[in-house]
Amino acid sequence: MKLAFIGLGKMGTGMARNLRRAGHELAVFNRTPGKAQALAAEGARIAATPEEACRDCDAVVTMLSDDLAVEAVAPATRGKVHIGCSTISTALARRLAEGNPSYLSAPVFGRPDAAEAGKLLVVSAGLAALVEKCRPVFDAIGRQTFVAGAEPWQANAVKLCGNFMIASLLETFGEAFATLRKAGVEPQLFLEVMNALFDSPVYASYGKVIAARQFEPAGFPVKLGLKDVRLALETAQECASPMPFASLIRDQLLAALAAGYGDQDWSVVSRIAARNAGLD
Amino acid sequence: MKLAFIGLGKMGTGMARNLRRAGHELAVFNRTPGKAQALAAEGARIAATPEEACRDCDAVVTMLSDDLAVEAVAPATRGKVHIGCSTISTALARRLAEGNPSYLSAPVFGRPDAAEAGKLLVVSAGLAALVEKCRPVFDAIGRQTFVAGAEPWQANAVKLCGNFMIASLLETFGEAFATLRKAGVEPQLFLEVMNALFDSPVYASYGKVIAARQFEPAGFPVKLGLKDVRLALETAQECASPMPFASLIRDQLLAALAAGYGDQDWSVVSRIAARNAGLD
Amino acid sequence: MKLAFIGLGKMGTGMARNLRRAGHELAVFNRTPGKAQALAAEGARIAATPEEACRDCDAVVTMLSDDLAVEAVAPATRGKVHIGCSTISTALARRLAEGNPSYLSAPVFGRPDAAEAGKLLVVSAGLAALVEKCRPVFDAIGRQTFVAGAEPWQANAVKLCGNFMIASLLETFGEAFATLRKAGVEPQLFLEVMNALFDSPVYASYGKVIAARQFEPAGFPVKLGLKDVRLALETAQECASPMPFASLIRDQLLAALAAGYGDQDWSVVSRIAARNAGLD
Amino acid sequence: MKLAFIGLGKMGTGMARNLRRAGHELAVFNRTPGKAQALAAEGARIAATPEEACRDCDAVVTMLSDDLAVEAVAPATRGKVHIGCSTISTALARRLAEGNPSYLSAPVFGRPDAAEAGKLLVVSAGLAALVEKCRPVFDAIGRQTFVAGAEPWQANAVKLCGNFMIASLLETFGEAFATLRKAGVEPQLFLEVMNALFDSPVYASYGKVIAARQFEPAGFPVKLGLKDVRLALETAQECASPMPFASLIRDQLLAALAAGYGDQDWSVVSRIAARNAGLD
Repeated sequence: MKLAFIGLGKMGTGMARNLRRAGHELAVFNRTPGKAQALAAEGARIAATPEEACRDCDAVVTMLSDDLAVEAVAPATRGKVHIGCSTISTALARRLAEGNPSYLSAPVFGRPDAAEAGKLLVVSAGLAALVEKCRPVFDAIGRQTFVAGAEPWQANAVKLCGNFMIASLLETFGEAFATLRKAGVEPQLFLEVMNALFDSPVYASYGKVIAARQFEPAGFPVKLGLKDVRLALETAQECASPMPFASLIRDQLLAALAAGYGDQDWSVVSRIAARNAGLD
Repeated sequence: MKLAFIGLGKMGTGMARNLRRAGHELAVFNRTPGKAQALAAEGARIAATPEEACRDCDAVVTMLSDDLAVEAVAPATRGKVHIGCSTISTALARRLAEGNPSYLSAPVFGRPDAAEAGKLLVVSAGLAALVEKCRPVFDAIGRQTFVAGAEPWQANAVKLCGNFMIASLLETFGEAFATLRKAGVEPQLFLEVMNALFDSPVYASYGKVIAARQFEPAGFPVKLGLKDVRLALETAQECASPMPFASLIRDQLLAALAAGYGDQDWSVVSRIAARNAGLD
Repeated sequence: MKLAFIGLGKMGTGMARNLRRAGHELAVFNRTPGKAQALAAEGARIAATPEEACRDCDAVVTMLSDDLAVEAVAPATRGKVHIGCSTISTALARRLAEGNPSYLSAPVFGRPDAAEAGKLLVVSAGLAALVEKCRPVFDAIGRQTFVAGAEPWQANAVKLCGNFMIASLLETFGEAFATLRKAGVEPQLFLEVMNALFDSPVYASYGKVIAARQFEPAGFPVKLGLKDVRLALETAQECASPMPFASLIRDQLLAALAAGYGDQDWSVVSRIAARNAGLD
Repeated sequence: MKLAFIGLGKMGTGMARNLRRAGHELAVFNRTPGKAQALAAEGARIAATPEEACRDCDAVVTMLSDDLAVEAVAPATRGKVHIGCSTISTALARRLAEGNPSYLSAPVFGRPDAAEAGKLLVVSAGLAALVEKCRPVFDAIGRQTFVAGAEPWQANAVKLCGNFMIASLLETFGEAFATLRKAGVEPQLFLEVMNALFDSPVYASYGKVIAARQFEPAGFPVKLGLKDVRLALETAQECASPMPFASLIRDQLLAALAAGYGDQDWSVVSRIAARNAGLD
């Protein structure tokens, strides 16, 4: 396929590279142009504007940081098949779908290393025919593709709820570790028991960070985490569905922000739980 | 070893059977005597009282439903090595240790099928020499043994925090499923995404129950779950460690109890989340 | 003064009438024109558009239902002294101030009967000289005027936090009444004790509604209450200040909305507390 | 009446004095005997033991710090009319009633100055005839007496819920003040608005303490407040009534305790809210 790719951050770079490797023709755009150089060496065409990237393409993939950034490039995607991979609000996804019948949402789960390895989880939603047409894109970037529904925003709802699942785990770990530290139990011991009990790589990796209190460098910073939980709560409000855990996590992330941890990994909410227990 | 085993409920029966299979000599006691018959056929001696079960034993294992039941048999264990496998309060564990220097806590993680298969996770705590002496017991009932510390109650703190980790997962799932049902997303789809993301048997099994809203028969009923969360909060209070998630889960379990779901699986808290979103 | 008044809802009508009674010249505008007739009989001029109402005035007072309604009339107020009495977001108040150096916020506390009686509490904020110039307006509509700061949005922050104080009281009452009903205590008895203890007209009036479970007609409906709590949380987010009580109230109001109580008085959150306790 | 009075703390001393002033014959007992001297000068007889105080009395009044202290003197009250004014658990009140058919609960609202002035609020519960018989006692110590029900523990439920109402106000104030401080609004200004809005002496006095951040000397320390909220939650659990606000307050009080504020006034929970917002 002839693809445009907009947004070459940590995630986007790996995704674009895998699309190129899968044999797709690629025109890339990034607001700060330096990031595109490596991809040019691998055969991608560097575009000077989003519009130029989208010219004559079969589909455009966007992977940007937030609603604002996506809205800024939306005009360039009009009339094109638009695959929105960014984590955006369900409200924006609905507006994008209203403005472009060929819009579909395909947010992804996975960290930059999974993006680099083409092993993301892709959650797509939109017209069935459109989803099928875009399969080659999903196959190139991910290890598994899910279809959440016929309306694009449903995929974003799944993505936001998935991130809420992770955020909730962080707070849960934080409270348990705080209590056990005060009980004189080694964090490492509790982590081993939880690994044996849950047997999940997500527990293993976040548990390790929290047990070691190593919140830098940030895999996913508080600021982005706070944005995602806020978006989950907005979706919940649209659906009139109370989410008290999500509300509480938002408050803990806000406390982390107020404490100056905004650029640390969002598992630093565990430090708020520790502080509330009188620990450092 | 010559062992006494007190408490032949769903968990205890499997544990006792595996001790027998491992070649230990076994005297068993249960308040309702019928449950002991099957074990008698496998070579266990049935005792008429806890005291009789404990006579001449090297160690006594207790696996009972709550603090009250354990306190009732505690006098019979005086002067013996006492391995407390029940999920009890940290306060009671401390009192048992004060009353008996040979007491150690060894609560277990796992459902009745894991008890039957000898694949429990055992979290022990107590004097190191005592823990080593009891290794054959742990090896017979579990697939892995952890040592939480030198004070018996520390193992109970780990057990209670582990159950809190599961309870928190239930509430998290409940809120996410409620929001997504209102968003028109199939619960099954979300479950598949979460299985791919977390890759954990605990997520798979509880997620399945919640997605299908099949809360009976109860794997672990609300009443016992409420007890454990309450005990976790008592431990947190002893440690002066706030656990707002645990507090909120307690309130949701209480709402489930008030709704008449006390004997259903504790994952029925997800039904409270659904009701709060206006769903059935 | 020569005043324009935009927004003749339950609150605005009483406020406009008191401005007229105090001798001010008045041009009024309302989207649905019927509501202006009564004021015309008292000497107000009816304007066909916000622009017409504002022509040649010394100041324009706006009293509208939400951010959207205020933004819609904002262009008509450019270049005029603009007294914003609506309960709006702090973010919008900042934008209004950026667009018009003569903007000041003056949200009010009080129900329609207090508006009619000219006994509102006025919380103003903005340039000191401007506040002084507008004193005659505040004196006509209120019994007391406060100055929250030099930036207009600070008055809105005070208003939103004040409404949060009331919302929190409703949830508190709801939980206490639910527990006491289950304890067999008459709600009326508890209300009398609380009236003796707090000696506050707000407790007396809301307590009466909740004890009698008379949520219709709505003094202030769930929908508006939810809006205000949401705005308080947005302000809290701007300030990086966690407000767990506000978060929880938002969830309870959302549950009330999902239960179909959106048009009932916001004290109906007490019915959510009752339902969670298994009561009707 | 011939009265025994047990417990001469800050509250009890004033209560006993007013009973003496009202002409009742009084035998007093306190664990630390020094406190009884002043009352002896006013005509009270000092007893060496609870039993001696109760000998030949018409009724015994107990005003002690917690369940433990009340249970310790309970044997001395057997067979006597026992008026329990302490803030105790509903569970203990039920046990006392089972052990003594002439037991009635009569917890009080008010600070030591109100006790000294005989202006407490008395919430009684028990057999109607017994309550009537004890009216002269209530009249001497209080300005108003309420009857909560026929079972003594109902009065304790009312007392605990009343204290919860105050605790909830503290947390609410704390969150509002924190947000407004970050918004640059003077605490004093907000307090004035709230006084005008709620017009309650409780708001005025606690608001003043919180606005000025003067948590010492403690009117009512965190430790006692934590005990009362814990007891309210125990009652809620007995009634299967979730109280999420009460749960959250308990966590905030626990955080205050962990921060070393256990002996400061319980309004210091507002300092936890401030800290979570990044303030001192």
